[in-house]
Amino acid sequence: MSNWESYLADNQDRFLEELKDFLRIPSISSLPEHANDVLDAGKWVTKRMASAGIENIEILPTDGHPVVYGDWLHAPNKPTILIYGHFDVQPVDPLDLWDRPPFEPEVKDGRIYARGATDDKGNMLTPILAVEALLKTEGTLPVNLKFLFEGQEEIGSPDLPPFMAKEAERFACDLVVSSDGGQMSEDQPVLLVGTKGLAALEIHIKGAKSDLHSGMYGGTIQNPIHALANIISKLRSDDGKILVDGFYDDVVDLSEKDRELISAVPYNKDVFISKIDVPETFGEPGYSTVERRFARPTLELNGIWGGFQGDGVKTVLPSEAHAKITCRLVANQHPAKIRDLLQAYIENIAPPGVTVDVIQQQSQALPYLMQSDHPANMIGGQVLTELYGVEPLFVRTGGSVPIYELFETHLKKKCLTFAFGLDDENLHAPNEFFRLSSFKKAQKGYCKLIHALSNLNPAEGS
Amino acid sequence: MSNWESYLADNQDRFLEELKDFLRIPSISSLPEHANDVLDAGKWVTKRMASAGIENIEILPTDGHPVVYGDWLHAPNKPTILIYGHFDVQPVDPLDLWDRPPFEPEVKDGRIYARGATDDKGNMLTPILAVEALLKTEGTLPVNLKFLFEGQEEIGSPDLPPFMAKEAERFACDLVVSSDGGQMSEDQPVLLVGTKGLAALEIHIKGAKSDLHSGMYGGTIQNPIHALANIISKLRSDDGKILVDGFYDDVVDLSEKDRELISAVPYNKDVFISKIDVPETFGEPGYSTVERRFARPTLELNGIWGGFQGDGVKTVLPSEAHAKITCRLVANQHPAKIRDLLQAYIENIAPPGVTVDVIQQQSQALPYLMQSDHPANMIGGQVLTELYGVEPLFVRTGGSVPIYELFETHLKKKCLTFAFGLDDENLHAPNEFFRLSSFKKAQKGYCKLIHALSNLNPAEGS
Repeated sequence: MSNWESYLADNQDRFLEELKDFLRIPSISSLPEHANDVLDAGKWVTKRMASAGIENIEILPTDGHPVVYGDWLHAPNKPTILIYGHFDVQPVDPLDLWDRPPFEPEVKDGRIYARGATDDKGNMLTPILAVEALLKTEGTLPVNLKFLFEGQEEIGSPDLPPFMAKEAERFACDLVVSSDGGQMSEDQPVLLVGTKGLAALEIHIKGAKSDLHSGMYGGTIQNPIHALANIISKLRSDDGKILVDGFYDDVVDLSEKDRELISAVPYNKDVFISKIDVPETFGEPGYSTVERRFARPTLELNGIWGGFQGDGVKTVLPSEAHAKITCRLVANQHPAKIRDLLQAYIENIAPPGVTVDVIQQQSQALPYLMQSDHPANMIGGQVLTELYGVEPLFVRTGGSVPIYELFETHLKKKCLTFAFGLDDENLHAPNEFFRLSSFKKAQKGYCKLIHALSNLNPAEGS
Repeated sequence: MSNWESYLADNQDRFLEELKDFLRIPSISSLPEHANDVLDAGKWVTKRMASAGIENIEILPTDGHPVVYGDWLHAPNKPTILIYGHFDVQPVDPLDLWDRPPFEPEVKDGRIYARGATDDKGNMLTPILAVEALLKTEGTLPVNLKFLFEGQEEIGSPDLPPFMAKEAERFACDLVVSSDGGQMSEDQPVLLVGTKGLAALEIHIKGAKSDLHSGMYGGTIQNPIHALANIISKLRSDDGKILVDGFYDDVVDLSEKDRELISAVPYNKDVFISKIDVPETFGEPGYSTVERRFARPTLELNGIWGGFQGDGVKTVLPSEAHAKITCRLVANQHPAKIRDLLQAYIENIAPPGVTVDVIQQQSQALPYLMQSDHPANMIGGQVLTELYGVEPLFVRTGGSVPIYELFETHLKKKCLTFAFGLDDENLHAPNEFFRLSSFKKAQKGYCKLIHALSNLNPAEGS
């Protein structure tokens, strides 16, 4: 019996052909006409899981695209790990910017090009291949595994919250590992320890019942745009601190250790500024740009409108003005509480002479924070260090990733992100690709991780 | 020889038929297909002036619709009065809201209905009829008269500034009297002593080179909408005083007499509020609502836009934000100076992290102020008191009226507004009408005014 490393090497050509088969299925979850393709991708996954030796495979219905389940539960007294990934992909337009048809995979210069190559088919296939390699070479697994592969990640997993609530028992585990994500570069691994939550609201200002002549009424009544600007200007200090009462109350402050880890993440101000072409960085006093991005809550105006927007001069005193606001939240802020605080604050500072309505939006996300010294990070970090020869950096994202919240809410477990996409691989864009070196590194990584996780104390996955 | 009063009475039926003829001409100056109708209305005016005994009548070309000139200059050592009016009219849409075709005049319940009835054909005809009555009954006039009737008032008289500059000598006079305007009610005359000027600019804020992900970049760079709101909020204090350095420097303060005259103008706060449906009035501290409207400069946001304006949540950090501002000015503010002050102030308070561009707009108007005790107001006020049995109130408008500026700039003379339209006569709207009682009162008023102005000291018309 060979070892898993030589098994991976011996079967690499076949694995690549299988990835191509997987990539040929146009499983675009956002387009109704591709619903059957999403289902077909799910079916392809079930077959590939079965041939790897995974058991109890099922396609589970949701109110939308299905979920694929499978398990291998023959390691008594060992932890149970839930592996997550998704088999749906982004749309492909604009098609004319692709160098080749997006669902006809092509290998060139050590990369495989196709929609879904890096996000997430190339990544999500690798734990299955790792399981096959381990079972074929060792005959058993050192941990219990469950799998949750979904078909609606690219549309925000709308049907997963009720599905997870209902199926929490089935997916019960000691730790979740996500195959959806990436590393900083070919040479620098990372561990993702935080994502931000989201709270959204709109402000609607109403003055007179209709637009008025600015000569006849100017100076005698409140201008809704002026009222809105006054409100917005009081949401933050001029130097960027959010002034909403209680806004920062539940924020987990950065420890000295956190700040050390963040300062280790490469940041070049000149590159940052020139990339997006702004005159200067700007943000909450007392924090670095990376700290603001990783670990501080934000309040951003997403849109504003009111009155005349055409060319030239129109001497109108508008009857309405509107703005949209989203806040990115950090642990342990809660969207509903933040919305309430914002609404109360805005209503309290509402200028006289207009009606101010604050509308709380349904869209929300909870923030996610995993301690850098969480046992899963210790184990995952060790594997990454072996793979790269360099210790991983600890990073957080300013974006919101609903699945972390889903697992924390319904399974009460943290999620280790263990995936190998890189930022330059055109995810969500034309000419998406995945490095073959990453494909191999991921297979090897999952074999090592599955072994290493056998040492996880089940009580420590929360 | 009868007196002018009985002449007016004897000829009223004919005058009404003549007004109907005038109203049948669809002289809509804004519509190119009606250009010939505007010219025809001008020709109609020249004929009517000639039959009244006015001399040296000419149709003078401009770069657009023509001007009609005429004079009667046989009163040596008496003042020369220039009478102004316009023979073009507003468009008629929406046509289905008219109870009758807009250019088929109908007399009903003591009113004549047609487009242009009150604005300005019914009014501008009356000084011509008065001249006829005086010449037919007295054989001469007690003053010298010149006439300027234009065909482009409803489109803002775009060609009159160069025309007046060129023809200043021809129109030289001691006082201008405008037949375009109105009274407060059937029982209450007014004298218009002020109009506001106008200065306009736009603010353009530029942040990053494109819209960005609010999670990836939120909190690390300045948000253009926030920057714009901060600027706007600093243009005025929260209680409505304009904070732009130097903004009020050239304002002619209200004298105690001015404030007395303004407080005499009827104002009912409940009616004002309910008419436009605002929760409360609002404006510069230290001034009443009517003072703010009549005599204080204003700064109003006309429009604002930036980022996402659609339904739902879009987590974008916009790259741009824009606003349009107009100021209404009072004597002796100058639009160019005010624009410069605003630009300097805005550039000075521009927040960090964005580019702020202030674009000065060409559209402008000078403010106009006539002293309430100006000799022409004394004379006009005496005539109005005789006509109404009540002394006139002194009013100003928050709007801008370019012709006052035109006469002040090119002729160096003030303009007495002597006209009889009422606010409820649907000017610029469907079912425009003019009261026959006003039509008669105007004829009588002009006969009296022409006599009374013979006492104007020519040096006092400026």
